[in-house]
Amino acid sequence: MPPMITDTMHSPFARLQPISLTDVTLDDTIWAVRQQQNRTTILPYQYGVCESTGRIDNFRLASGKIQADFRGLFFNDSDVYKWLEAAAWALITPDAELTKTVDNLIQEIAAAQGDDGYLNTYFMFDKAAERWQNLTVMHELYCAGHLIQAAIAHQRTTKNDALMQIARRFADLICATFGADKRPGTDGHPEIEMALVELYRATGEKRYLEQAQYFLDARGYGIIGGAEYCQDDMPFRERKALAGHAVRALYLCAGAADIFMETGDVALLQTLETVWQHTVTRRSYVNGGIGSRHEGEAIGSDYELPNASGYGETCAAIASVMWNWRMLQITGSGLYADVMEHTLYNAVLPGVSLDGTTYFYTNPLANDGTHRRQPWFECACCPPNIARTLASLPGYCYSVSPEGVWVHLYARNDAKLTLPDGREIMLDQTTRYPWHGAITIELASVPTDNTFSLFLRIPAWCEDGARLVINSDVYTGELIPGTYLEIRRAWQLGDMLVLTLPMPVRRIESHPNIVENHGHVALQRGPILYCVEGVDQPNIDLDTLVLTENDFHADYEPETLSGVVVLRGHAATMTRPQAWQQQLYRTYKPARLLQTRVPLTAIPYFAWANRAAAPMRVWLRG
Amino acid sequence: MPPMITDTMHSPFARLQPISLTDVTLDDTIWAVRQQQNRTTILPYQYGVCESTGRIDNFRLASGKIQADFRGLFFNDSDVYKWLEAAAWALITPDAELTKTVDNLIQEIAAAQGDDGYLNTYFMFDKAAERWQNLTVMHELYCAGHLIQAAIAHQRTTKNDALMQIARRFADLICATFGADKRPGTDGHPEIEMALVELYRATGEKRYLEQAQYFLDARGYGIIGGAEYCQDDMPFRERKALAGHAVRALYLCAGAADIFMETGDVALLQTLETVWQHTVTRRSYVNGGIGSRHEGEAIGSDYELPNASGYGETCAAIASVMWNWRMLQITGSGLYADVMEHTLYNAVLPGVSLDGTTYFYTNPLANDGTHRRQPWFECACCPPNIARTLASLPGYCYSVSPEGVWVHLYARNDAKLTLPDGREIMLDQTTRYPWHGAITIELASVPTDNTFSLFLRIPAWCEDGARLVINSDVYTGELIPGTYLEIRRAWQLGDMLVLTLPMPVRRIESHPNIVENHGHVALQRGPILYCVEGVDQPNIDLDTLVLTENDFHADYEPETLSGVVVLRGHAATMTRPQAWQQQLYRTYKPARLLQTRVPLTAIPYFAWANRAAAPMRVWLRG
Repeated sequence: MPPMITDTMHSPFARLQPISLTDVTLDDTIWAVRQQQNRTTILPYQYGVCESTGRIDNFRLASGKIQADFRGLFFNDSDVYKWLEAAAWALITPDAELTKTVDNLIQEIAAAQGDDGYLNTYFMFDKAAERWQNLTVMHELYCAGHLIQAAIAHQRTTKNDALMQIARRFADLICATFGADKRPGTDGHPEIEMALVELYRATGEKRYLEQAQYFLDARGYGIIGGAEYCQDDMPFRERKALAGHAVRALYLCAGAADIFMETGDVALLQTLETVWQHTVTRRSYVNGGIGSRHEGEAIGSDYELPNASGYGETCAAIASVMWNWRMLQITGSGLYADVMEHTLYNAVLPGVSLDGTTYFYTNPLANDGTHRRQPWFECACCPPNIARTLASLPGYCYSVSPEGVWVHLYARNDAKLTLPDGREIMLDQTTRYPWHGAITIELASVPTDNTFSLFLRIPAWCEDGARLVINSDVYTGELIPGTYLEIRRAWQLGDMLVLTLPMPVRRIESHPNIVENHGHVALQRGPILYCVEGVDQPNIDLDTLVLTENDFHADYEPETLSGVVVLRGHAATMTRPQAWQQQLYRTYKPARLLQTRVPLTAIPYFAWANRAAAPMRVWLRG
Repeated sequence: MPPMITDTMHSPFARLQPISLTDVTLDDTIWAVRQQQNRTTILPYQYGVCESTGRIDNFRLASGKIQADFRGLFFNDSDVYKWLEAAAWALITPDAELTKTVDNLIQEIAAAQGDDGYLNTYFMFDKAAERWQNLTVMHELYCAGHLIQAAIAHQRTTKNDALMQIARRFADLICATFGADKRPGTDGHPEIEMALVELYRATGEKRYLEQAQYFLDARGYGIIGGAEYCQDDMPFRERKALAGHAVRALYLCAGAADIFMETGDVALLQTLETVWQHTVTRRSYVNGGIGSRHEGEAIGSDYELPNASGYGETCAAIASVMWNWRMLQITGSGLYADVMEHTLYNAVLPGVSLDGTTYFYTNPLANDGTHRRQPWFECACCPPNIARTLASLPGYCYSVSPEGVWVHLYARNDAKLTLPDGREIMLDQTTRYPWHGAITIELASVPTDNTFSLFLRIPAWCEDGARLVINSDVYTGELIPGTYLEIRRAWQLGDMLVLTLPMPVRRIESHPNIVENHGHVALQRGPILYCVEGVDQPNIDLDTLVLTENDFHADYEPETLSGVVVLRGHAATMTRPQAWQQQLYRTYKPARLLQTRVPLTAIPYFAWANRAAAPMRVWLRG
């Protein structure tokens, strides 16, 4: 979750400060629709599955309300907490039925908590003796982290502290249990670091921050086994590149960024910048996905980015968004906003079907049509992670700083923002972004002391000349892709900015070291990555397509895939390249042209696999 | 050296048996010319350098004839022995002056030998106590191996056993010193294995074979330090891929093949076949060179085959020829003959300048013009290795077996071959191969019992339909590239075979995993790999060339580069691809056509760097 500060302290080492989730009302055709779907479809469905799979019964049996065996996997409590966090954020829109469900669930959780504050439904009764005995594997601190995050969200949106009391009792037990002079330990799956820092922000209790620091710095000395998979192979500060389990690695980076924001521990920021740079230049998919290996759900080595066999777990994409969000808050650098936006549209959004009922756990960039979203998973980390991300999305649109307002994400919305000095500013953002590059921002309310800055993000993808008009005056300064443009002036009510970000269809090529993309291109328009899906070209082997020209028309089609811009153009078809068997060199066999011009349709990658099963490719010969 | 059996026993586990060096008289325009040059230029020059650099004085000071300090590197004796082996093979052509030089040198060596048979000029006087103390580094057994090989060559061509007596005394000391029940040890640089097996073949003394087996099987248990560089990281029989120092790895394979030929130890053959397959499909340059890393002169990992920074040591190519020769003798499979021939022309031959005066130690496949052959090296392994290879080359042209005669290399020659049963056959081979694909073989003498087979190699490169005519009858069976065609019949004097191997210019592409060759092609015609050299296209950046067509004329030009077939055709030129800085993905920037048709000249790769210094490329965009 983004560090959603409302009535809490500000992070002293972050240049930007987050806004409140209630400050922004989205009204766009992607995120607002998903938020609505989250409330009407996703949250009710996921709650039902949590009941039917025993995830909530596990709490009831822990409290003695029912007699049964624990059902499911040892970390299933976290799914309930993630659902609860999502529901809590969703309650910015009042909903009596959801409130009742949440309150009842909190009662079940409260009843399951031990007298000492311990809370994990797997380690009850005969398993109680095993508590804290296997931190490497058993996820107790991981689950605690999700409980804490849910509690903070619930308190912030409802002002009710029932869940917060539970979370703090458990957090206090954890602080009393683990430490350099107490029991050594840290969790095999990072997560609690972010939660404890946010609990510090929410309560002002420094021991939570110190506990997060302890858990981070305890890594790398083998106390949980020393595996790269668990981020225990080296001290975090010595890391030069992300490695091991992708979600673990990225959650840890997000937690370290949180710790830096509060402590100013520069070595942490240097490590984060080093591994970030390495990740975006060596170990990221073109959709922003991270993690190439099924084995160990691991980040691969440099340039190891296979398309069909790629992993790209949805949770890793969410984790990358969380990390980049924090880096953006720390620095105010557009580099991080670019990765965050790109990952949201092209690696998080594909994780849920257009109707909100099924989910991708892994996200390959090429498939034969057999990879389809599922309603749920035995290891169900991704579905409620998507739910809490969708529910908290308005918070990612803006930040504030002493200078003024930072506009990160373009999407139709009304915002009422409060600067750190208390001045209130209202903005109306009107746009059809990401489908169209024109964005109008009107100052709907301006404080008496009216001199402040608007920081407009100029996306890195906007290589074709962004333009800005302010009240019909053309802005003549430079608009540099990948940076924020600061416009500082004495603003008047009704001032109007029109930012235009041209969106030609761009062919993307990848670094020559990504072997299988050699001679291939991907299509991107604005922030949206495209793919071709067999549904749209039923009689063509996608591997024979060659993008010899870039003649695409890009039109919004309201009836296609719930409304997207579809690219329609042409391609040639060639003979398939022959497979390489046991040969290192062979006589060159040029591909033979089959047809010079066949119609080609490309759809947003996030929308693939929402129609009949069919092959899909992101990279095409070109 | 090839196991050149004359009056010695036959290897029981080899399908083929080698001929005598004296059986073949080459009269072609490449190898015969080099043999002549070897006698007139290379051997005299190299002897002079061995004198001027103190390599021979080291023997004189070891015997006490002169007072001086040891000069040069600790393994320099091996250069003298390799020269002596080359000179010994060259003495198949009587030469009184060379005979005198050889005899005098043998006297110097004899005088330097210790009473116990020990012989290494570095470990004399105050260094005598260090003998056998550091087998990992100090090359004593390696030098001994080269002494033994020189002695065998000398005895075979001169029937004089002066050097053989020295070698056997040292070999006997080695056998008495090392073993499982004696001093444990094996050399950091394999070489003695081949020498001891050949000494067994020459003498019939089984202890030499057993000593070679001991040295092979002692590896992999850390008794010389356990390094991959020294082939001590694992038992040879467990190896799945060549690794470590290229020459060490390949010499060891050649030695293991020798041991298999005598023992039938099937595990050795299985290992050899496994690593051979891995090498040719993962770790070989398009010219047959092996070894991609300067660091540790090492074989790289799979598909790690950089062109400009490639190592491709000339000695490694020679070692590959020796290994493939032995595999060919064992199996009679054309697979090995193809690699052997290809490596000879394209990886060994480039090692010496056309005038025979300068040498390449490393052989990159792309260069800016700064890489030039040198007259000598401080570590001078390559020059005398080339000399002994050139001197022994006639022995690689044919083999015999109980079925008949095997024709491996096509080159104009007269041969008088003896089958294992004693029948004598004379063949006249007339051809302009490798420049022209027509080969005529006439039976110039046929034994009374005249039924036997001729095995004609159909090279793997001959993909365009080899044809055979026997006495004006077209052979109607299948001629399968990469195999030997057996023609068995009752041969008559004057029978004539005309084999035609079409030689179109072929564009070669490489496995997609060899990253930097992606989208590039190399040119090959017949067995000869080509390159382009700036000398022939002075005003063109070679990296802008694109082989859009294959319109080459291939004509023999007697005045060019001492007489080669030059390819003359056309290419387009494009803008240079932009360098990839810190980007993983970027907007596709297609190369822009500059000129559609510029003249292009390609020359044999072996002949590059024989004119003014200029850039060279084997792989061109295409």
